[in-house]
Amino acid sequence: MINITFPDGNVRQYEKGTTAFEIARSISEGLARNVLSAKVNGEVWDATRPLNEDATMQLLTWNDVDGKKTFWHSSAHLMAEALEALFPGIKFGAGPATDTGFYYDVDPGDYKISQEDFPKIEQKMLELAREKNTYCRKPVTKDEAIEFFKDKGDEYKLELIDKRGADEALTLYEQGNFVDLCKGPHIADTSRIKAVKIMNVAGAYWQGDESRNQMTRVYGVSFPKQKELKEYLELLEEAKKRDHRKLGAELELFMFSEKVGSGLPIWLPNGTALRERLMDYLKAEQEKRGYLPVITPHIGKKELYMTSGHYEKYGEDSFQPIHTPREGEEFLLKPMNCPHHCEVYANRPHSYKELPLRLAEFGTVYRYEQSGELHGLSRVRGFTQDDAHIFCTPDQLKDEFLNVLDLTVGVFRKMGFEDFTAQISLRDPETPEKYIGTTENWEKAETAIIEATKEVELKTVTEYGEAAFYGPKLDFMIKDALGRSWQLGTIQVDYNLPDRFELEYVGSDNQAHRPVMIHRAPFGSMERFISILIEHTAGKFPLWLAPEQFAILPISDKWEAYAEEVKAQLAVHDIRGFIDNRTESIGRKIRDTELKKVPFMLIVGEKEAENQSVGVRRQGEGDLGAMSIPEFIEFFKGQL
Amino acid sequence: MINITFPDGNVRQYEKGTTAFEIARSISEGLARNVLSAKVNGEVWDATRPLNEDATMQLLTWNDVDGKKTFWHSSAHLMAEALEALFPGIKFGAGPATDTGFYYDVDPGDYKISQEDFPKIEQKMLELAREKNTYCRKPVTKDEAIEFFKDKGDEYKLELIDKRGADEALTLYEQGNFVDLCKGPHIADTSRIKAVKIMNVAGAYWQGDESRNQMTRVYGVSFPKQKELKEYLELLEEAKKRDHRKLGAELELFMFSEKVGSGLPIWLPNGTALRERLMDYLKAEQEKRGYLPVITPHIGKKELYMTSGHYEKYGEDSFQPIHTPREGEEFLLKPMNCPHHCEVYANRPHSYKELPLRLAEFGTVYRYEQSGELHGLSRVRGFTQDDAHIFCTPDQLKDEFLNVLDLTVGVFRKMGFEDFTAQISLRDPETPEKYIGTTENWEKAETAIIEATKEVELKTVTEYGEAAFYGPKLDFMIKDALGRSWQLGTIQVDYNLPDRFELEYVGSDNQAHRPVMIHRAPFGSMERFISILIEHTAGKFPLWLAPEQFAILPISDKWEAYAEEVKAQLAVHDIRGFIDNRTESIGRKIRDTELKKVPFMLIVGEKEAENQSVGVRRQGEGDLGAMSIPEFIEFFKGQL
Repeated sequence: MINITFPDGNVRQYEKGTTAFEIARSISEGLARNVLSAKVNGEVWDATRPLNEDATMQLLTWNDVDGKKTFWHSSAHLMAEALEALFPGIKFGAGPATDTGFYYDVDPGDYKISQEDFPKIEQKMLELAREKNTYCRKPVTKDEAIEFFKDKGDEYKLELIDKRGADEALTLYEQGNFVDLCKGPHIADTSRIKAVKIMNVAGAYWQGDESRNQMTRVYGVSFPKQKELKEYLELLEEAKKRDHRKLGAELELFMFSEKVGSGLPIWLPNGTALRERLMDYLKAEQEKRGYLPVITPHIGKKELYMTSGHYEKYGEDSFQPIHTPREGEEFLLKPMNCPHHCEVYANRPHSYKELPLRLAEFGTVYRYEQSGELHGLSRVRGFTQDDAHIFCTPDQLKDEFLNVLDLTVGVFRKMGFEDFTAQISLRDPETPEKYIGTTENWEKAETAIIEATKEVELKTVTEYGEAAFYGPKLDFMIKDALGRSWQLGTIQVDYNLPDRFELEYVGSDNQAHRPVMIHRAPFGSMERFISILIEHTAGKFPLWLAPEQFAILPISDKWEAYAEEVKAQLAVHDIRGFIDNRTESIGRKIRDTELKKVPFMLIVGEKEAENQSVGVRRQGEGDLGAMSIPEFIEFFKGQL
Repeated sequence: MINITFPDGNVRQYEKGTTAFEIARSISEGLARNVLSAKVNGEVWDATRPLNEDATMQLLTWNDVDGKKTFWHSSAHLMAEALEALFPGIKFGAGPATDTGFYYDVDPGDYKISQEDFPKIEQKMLELAREKNTYCRKPVTKDEAIEFFKDKGDEYKLELIDKRGADEALTLYEQGNFVDLCKGPHIADTSRIKAVKIMNVAGAYWQGDESRNQMTRVYGVSFPKQKELKEYLELLEEAKKRDHRKLGAELELFMFSEKVGSGLPIWLPNGTALRERLMDYLKAEQEKRGYLPVITPHIGKKELYMTSGHYEKYGEDSFQPIHTPREGEEFLLKPMNCPHHCEVYANRPHSYKELPLRLAEFGTVYRYEQSGELHGLSRVRGFTQDDAHIFCTPDQLKDEFLNVLDLTVGVFRKMGFEDFTAQISLRDPETPEKYIGTTENWEKAETAIIEATKEVELKTVTEYGEAAFYGPKLDFMIKDALGRSWQLGTIQVDYNLPDRFELEYVGSDNQAHRPVMIHRAPFGSMERFISILIEHTAGKFPLWLAPEQFAILPISDKWEAYAEEVKAQLAVHDIRGFIDNRTESIGRKIRDTELKKVPFMLIVGEKEAENQSVGVRRQGEGDLGAMSIPEFIEFFKGQL
């Protein structure tokens, strides 16, 4: 008998040679039907692979990232089988699962795989899937593997084998007519794959090396149910419409310039107004909670980042040092604000009575990213953090966590995000030597985080071993309107920087003590947050945030004076907007304003000027009828 | 007879050999008494030197910078004579006038000149001055000069002579017992010098070369009247008290850090609050006037600054390019915001109907300065401009100038500056080839500036030939409470950047046209402006700007709850402040609050808590008696 430990800590005994499937079946038939693979001692295994020793085990289904990846990896093999059937002689490189499906790099010889081939590839895959072919795992020696792929004539696989150690145990996986060199794991058989879609085809250098020949990379995605594919494609379609890069240009929120440089967003007037409104909101919330604003430069001497340890860690991969024409100084673009804030703290002595000291800055930082990895506002080279650093005593940690959680949760709700969870990252209790700071302080901090999240009834998941070496942390994940998850702000405890900067406070015992530091940023960065907000709202921002809240559309230029009058009356109530006084038809003005996602259209003509009223339309909803100006103001305020 | 042309264009005839003095006397005896030297064909001459040819001439008095410098240069010679009398054998290096007085580098041998010697040097100088010794100009050959200083044994002067050409005409100046190698010019005689003060003594390497021996640099200042010296010393004393570096530290407005780097100000919470309040005020004023906010990165590709021409002009003297670890890109710290704003303009086509387009940004820029030239907030390496760029048609220039002048003058008044003038810098009409842009456009722009300044009744001075090659401009000078002048913001017309960035708009004729650009910044930079504001107000900022408007001082900790109540009531009216709940005596609390220049102190104890009142003190003014809270609120609002 062997002992199998489940994630909840339960231990059960099974016969030696039992498989994850059989274990699932011993729990319920339904569970067994859903099992795709299993995590055994932290490694993902075929669900059909026999267990011969005591182990920890987690059954993986479609709801687990690793389960999904098993499914997609098996789908890549299925696609390879289909490609081989359709294009005999095709050669294979690598074919992994990705976060959103799978791909295979293939060499189809003279043939050029194009979009026109997609339907027949999909059809062949489904046909082969229905054959219910088992994925068989076959351990082989290196020589056996070489012999097999020499026979088949697949030089790419031979090159991959060549890199493996002489005595390494290799495995082949076979399903139907297809055999692949593969570590696995795989699902039990092909019949699980009920829906497939070939998404794209592109070129990719063999081994990512520009000097090698270009392979054809075929991308696909697959699902256990047809319905899931349909939903996925609809989601993709909707996501495309909401792409913040597209909406950002259409709504004139931001731009990029070749000459200024890629990854460096430039905020246009509409985007600047939106961004400043968000910042003003957060500033006011922070002020209420006792934060003190500071402003620090965008560069710092290399010595600063040597003290903080950032230079040693990131120096070579960062924007390189800035030299002075004389005096031989070296500066770096600021990659984070914390070293600067430590210098602010160190500027004068502190008493325990002044703590917590909460220094806040909307600090713009610059971090090098390869140009290929840049993406709109979500992956950039320069961004503004809604940053703050709290210097406190270890005993104040819990109250400070509560203060930060209150702020963060309030901010998310105000922005229209209701679905969020937090990941608590704690020490790996087995390797205390990996962490700096005393055990007593770590326990204090971890307890503070856990208790604080419980008190505010936050949905949390706890991960052991995911803490930074310098302190435990809390990361927020939010779900957007399309159900996609995004990581936002972090609250990070830090015992390291106060040490490196030798920060101190005088305690009630009149002795010098070291403060603890909390890094926190509810939005994370203004750029990333706004990219998520654009996609979440599809550009229809909450009314209080909208760059323009109304557009007044005069039916002809005769009513411009009245339009100005309406605008002035609304301005008194801090309702902002503009007059569209182009010489266009009212129909055209309405269409253009709809596209700009301006929440309210106020149509003014003869009747309205006479009655001191406006014809109100709501973006995306249509006509709301005539209202007097005071009526509209009241209605508007009710919508805020 | 020779023709002498005066600054006003008048031409008068004089006998050959006439001196500036004689010319002054021909105008009035009073003028002659005040003449110190004269500018002849652009060169400063002794007023006693004969004129033998036609010339342009400006008589220089104490009110002219060059007149003052003549006076101080002669005072340096007088000090040298005094030093030689007091310390026989002393040797002389160089002894020029400066912007604030004069100095002489001397080698007193084994003797060490110290502060204790100052009174006797001053006394000796005044004694010699009363002798009314003439400053005599003596042209000599190089050999004659060498002979003279060999005899005297002054090796420093010999070294200076050695550097001059063999055939160069040299001059000696003699007054009383002192002879110096000197180009001049000088005042007529020593009796003009009525008041002297030795200010300081310091070391200075001979010829500024660290490998040479150290001379003793003796600094002094002198005046034609005793009263002027007194006023000057009082001004110095007051300026020292108001030094923004001293007050900036005392009021905790800003700091510098060795590790962050010199010349890079860090704004502390009080300073940040002040700065943001100024920015919010200006933002609101700009919004009223149709400015659109943008935000651009703090770096840009080298190509951007090659297009703008900044790289060619400033590249070598700037912070050097930032390289990327891969991809071989080169970025520069942004030295100005205009190239970025040109890219915003170029982002999409524009119609004449959209102009003027006014893009505003509080843009932080970085410019290298040698560390020796840095000075508090007034000379820094990183600063935030209250920048905007207006893109308009040539016909809109005057209206835009009026708009900018209205804003700028309003801002200065709001800040408490009432005394300001503007310098209009126009082309040199004689050298039109030095300027880019058509003559028609230049005339339009110059006329627009002149007319606009007249319409708002601005005090102006007009300087021909002071325009930039790319357009005319207007610079503001303000006078502070100590009567010192400071240059603030600039309004600059620019025909160059729109050309370099190939900016266009479609005119009403449906053709492409080039817009004109106006650069403008009322404050110039937040850092410099705040440094001036601190010194102008001695840290007692206008009430609306004060970081903290009140401090509540409880007589003992028993009254803290009532203090909180008062604070909350004031907060409702947007009156901001803090409670000083230290366990200090009320006397001590008042003294400390006075030093922090908090405008109002509200003292609360038993009587006040009972009567729902506060004991009001005004900073620097003392007790204003008890007021109920509503009374204080009303009183406060009346003071805004």
